[in-house]
Amino acid sequence: MASGKPASGEDSLIACYFRPLATDPGAYSLDDDAGALMPSGDDIVVTTDAIVEGVHFLPDDPPDTVARKALRVNLSDLAAKGAVPAGFVLTLALRSADEVWLKPFASALGEDAAQFGCPLLGGDTVSTPGPLMVSVTAFGRVPPGRMVHRSGAGVGERVMVTGTIGDAALGLAILRGGKVHAAASDKAARDALVGRYRVPQPRVALAEIVRDHASAAMDVSDGLAGDLAKLCSVSGVSAVIEVDAIPLSDAARDLVTRGVIGPETLITGGDDYEILCTMAEDRVGPFTQAAWVAGVAVSSIGTIVAGSSVPKFVDKEGREIALERLSYSHF
Amino acid sequence: MASGKPASGEDSLIACYFRPLATDPGAYSLDDDAGALMPSGDDIVVTTDAIVEGVHFLPDDPPDTVARKALRVNLSDLAAKGAVPAGFVLTLALRSADEVWLKPFASALGEDAAQFGCPLLGGDTVSTPGPLMVSVTAFGRVPPGRMVHRSGAGVGERVMVTGTIGDAALGLAILRGGKVHAAASDKAARDALVGRYRVPQPRVALAEIVRDHASAAMDVSDGLAGDLAKLCSVSGVSAVIEVDAIPLSDAARDLVTRGVIGPETLITGGDDYEILCTMAEDRVGPFTQAAWVAGVAVSSIGTIVAGSSVPKFVDKEGREIALERLSYSHF
Repeated sequence: MASGKPASGEDSLIACYFRPLATDPGAYSLDDDAGALMPSGDDIVVTTDAIVEGVHFLPDDPPDTVARKALRVNLSDLAAKGAVPAGFVLTLALRSADEVWLKPFASALGEDAAQFGCPLLGGDTVSTPGPLMVSVTAFGRVPPGRMVHRSGAGVGERVMVTGTIGDAALGLAILRGGKVHAAASDKAARDALVGRYRVPQPRVALAEIVRDHASAAMDVSDGLAGDLAKLCSVSGVSAVIEVDAIPLSDAARDLVTRGVIGPETLITGGDDYEILCTMAEDRVGPFTQAAWVAGVAVSSIGTIVAGSSVPKFVDKEGREIALERLSYSHF
Repeated sequence: MASGKPASGEDSLIACYFRPLATDPGAYSLDDDAGALMPSGDDIVVTTDAIVEGVHFLPDDPPDTVARKALRVNLSDLAAKGAVPAGFVLTLALRSADEVWLKPFASALGEDAAQFGCPLLGGDTVSTPGPLMVSVTAFGRVPPGRMVHRSGAGVGERVMVTGTIGDAALGLAILRGGKVHAAASDKAARDALVGRYRVPQPRVALAEIVRDHASAAMDVSDGLAGDLAKLCSVSGVSAVIEVDAIPLSDAARDLVTRGVIGPETLITGGDDYEILCTMAEDRVGPFTQAAWVAGVAVSSIGTIVAGSSVPKFVDKEGREIALERLSYSHF
């Protein structure tokens, strides 16, 4: 992003909407070809996630929620890696420079950047004849070598997850209409679930706590079952998960209790943006306490076991719940 | 980018095509949610540029050239900022996971990453119903505070540019057919110009030399006239450019000499990916010498003057050449 006095359309667009967000000295007021991250002795953790209209968000999702989702899915990755946000760059592919869309988009992006301490450092706006796409690359800091990996889970450790699982999948189902929409007759419950789909709550407050306690971690973005399978695979272990221990919101639990959906809908749905992590038994107490102080509920949902099979999800009688698919795949 | 044994389509795509590129320890074999840049005491310069099918490259451009262009436009930014490449992340928005396209794309990307010492650290692949898009965020290192800005140009300094200007615009004109294609009857010349459009030559070898000598710098991506105007505007100066001093390839000069195109086609065309920089008169010699040793020709094309007007382009009689537009804008 760059702008000078002889402004082109792109330049004036940036000057108007995004320069107010470039409050960090490393953004150089978006007047340069690049931004900069100053050295702190930390490792810089780098993550990138893009969201595409019609794939990751719906064409009629409000622009402010699109902005927040684009940044937050990346903040969620940083938190799961134990990294404290340091900044981000934005690539915006637009069909047109539509002020009605851009103004609330930029405004919400600025609010989130401030709230999570993750300043805009630069970006690129390009035109596309296709769907709108927002790609964010976010940076975080961890002390040298302290990034939390997917690969550290050990046999006998507990599997922990933050918040509640499956709400975003239900929110998407509600937006698409159908049986979940019809069954969730309470508007407040519907709005809450749709909110979870549109605006994830990245667990930024847990970054250092995850780093202090977890042996392995990742964020749950493609569904708990599939993401846990990935963590286990890279760690060379398997897991047994007690389905009844998986934390559900009241709205989700109500739908399960009434038989509208089965638990598989929740554990294979995507867009949770909770942190999934593993830790030794004696870490569970201190982790739970520290997370509680940080305002985040965490739940112990199962155990890491030896083996290379896909993790098992069992009910309270110990029967395995069959999953038709583990998670969402774009291809 | 992440993959585990229970591979989804996206995961196996990444494993197959992109994991071989993840040779840097900070890429964690693309098995994790994030990559990492180790601390070196340097500032990390961050730049991001996306290319969109039908906008920045043509639908029938070969996949290997698309890969090289996507990375090189970012390497060009780093070089102009005086930054030595440190790594990049990739976001790929694809309509389908087409092996015939992906294999040469990934292979060429790996070759360029190796050639320019800029390893893949992570990425994201998403599906899109729209045009293919490749977004790269690249990282470079400079000693603390030594990033070269657009804003340092001083009155009386010389304006320098690397390589030749306008070839890529001619290459694009050739691909689109029309008078330039018809006039450039020599196939070798045509191929060379098309090559300049499809595969930029980022001046990575000049990063430290620019840092040592330039007061201000940027890469020429949207046309020399428009980009110089931006540099001057941010520096609070103007410039006078001698059009006859602008370096042209033999093919471009031939087309100008024969009257097929005017110089304005060359100086307002985009995609040059040369470095434009300013420096004190006494730096011109050492800069030119150092660039020559690095294998890059540089030319002195004009002078920074006081004022806030758009830079003037004058012919050898001192007459100003009128430019209908300064550069390409996407909006």
